[in-house]
Amino acid sequence: MTEIDSLFRRVGSFHARYARVIDDEGAQGWPELFAPECLYVVTTAANHRAGMEAGLIYADSRGMLEDRITALNEANIYEQHVYRHLIGQPSISVEADGAITSEASFLVARIMRTGETEVFATGRYLDRFVECGTDLLLRERIVVCDSNRIDTLLALPL
Amino acid sequence: MTEIDSLFRRVGSFHARYARVIDDEGAQGWPELFAPECLYVVTTAANHRAGMEAGLIYADSRGMLEDRITALNEANIYEQHVYRHLIGQPSISVEADGAITSEASFLVARIMRTGETEVFATGRYLDRFVECGTDLLLRERIVVCDSNRIDTLLALPL
Amino acid sequence: MTEIDSLFRRVGSFHARYARVIDDEGAQGWPELFAPECLYVVTTAANHRAGMEAGLIYADSRGMLEDRITALNEANIYEQHVYRHLIGQPSISVEADGAITSEASFLVARIMRTGETEVFATGRYLDRFVECGTDLLLRERIVVCDSNRIDTLLALPL
Repeated sequence: MTEIDSLFRRVGSFHARYARVIDDEGAQGWPELFAPECLYVVTTAANHRAGMEAGLIYADSRGMLEDRITALNEANIYEQHVYRHLIGQPSISVEADGAITSEASFLVARIMRTGETEVFATGRYLDRFVECGTDLLLRERIVVCDSNRIDTLLALPL
Repeated sequence: MTEIDSLFRRVGSFHARYARVIDDEGAQGWPELFAPECLYVVTTAANHRAGMEAGLIYADSRGMLEDRITALNEANIYEQHVYRHLIGQPSISVEADGAITSEASFLVARIMRTGETEVFATGRYLDRFVECGTDLLLRERIVVCDSNRIDTLLALPL
Repeated sequence: MTEIDSLFRRVGSFHARYARVIDDEGAQGWPELFAPECLYVVTTAANHRAGMEAGLIYADSRGMLEDRITALNEANIYEQHVYRHLIGQPSISVEADGAITSEASFLVARIMRTGETEVFATGRYLDRFVECGTDLLLRERIVVCDSNRIDTLLALPL
């Protein structure tokens, strides 16, 4: 059972790193957590249940993720608020072709520069990982938000 | 130390599955997470400290849990709100008779269909697990809520 | 890889115990989670980024932590509110000299005796552990709060 124990620890550590890159490092390193060919979608539970692919955010390459970060820098978003990600324990499967899939709950608190803190978003990550040496990279992250009303000022990545 | 490492991963994975069944699957499979002979209690910290057994919810068989889900379906609760469980890391003990006990913090956010999100309940799970093949099942889950005021509309399971 | 898997479980279990001692046991055993020579600092992200050492709370011995708990008891703080800590998965490093460092996100909900629940604080723990038999003890915990406005009634430890 050791391999699955290691995987549990590696996925958990990945989540910790993902949260840190966004919450504490201004999201500059966020695109590097994805494989060069990747899919990042933010959608709502209602859309996801209906099988709709398009979401609030749809990016299908690391280049598109980099563009988002460049836009963030120009908008000076980081000056206005920060996030704090809390990510629950993962439910992991290894599929027949070796693909590693994982599902985990998240809660993101938003802390405004004025000091106010609120629950900004909740939902779950539907992930597909690839191994890159001893690291894991995201081939796919579908962010399924519980609420159908996500702030249109959505700025930092979820 | 490998056995306890595996147990840590197995209890964590169980929590992830428990959350998914309620938050993303409308709680239909919730009773199957318990052993046929089981105890599920929702109580407050004040009652728990006072040693009072009865709680806001008291069910001592899987059949009673199934009745709750049937009632939920009839009331169409799932149309009105959803939950998002965040469950902290478990503190696990293996007792002399082989029983696996665990304690973990939880926070449940409630997302109304109108889009509002609030912290609905916080507290801790006091669990006793039995092994069933490679799976864990709950023999007992005491849900100790921090607040003494739990919404009387308490509907989906905590 | 087994050793790092065990460490992941041990740090996670430590976080669970830390939360329980404060949230469910009135913080009486909190100083014993630290090594006799230790550093406990609560600060803000802005101060931390600026390299400022002093924080909202600064304690550099277990004796100072014990003094805080004595003061809490005298003020009967526990009667007024409780906390619920949710601590995310840790990102762990073992340094060249054997020191174990870890970083984890936290969210603390505050539950007033009147029943109100709010997100009281979010941030991250920057930890340095020492081994003491099979236990881990904190040599250092820097609590970096996201908000620059932390309630001046800050009472129970974060």
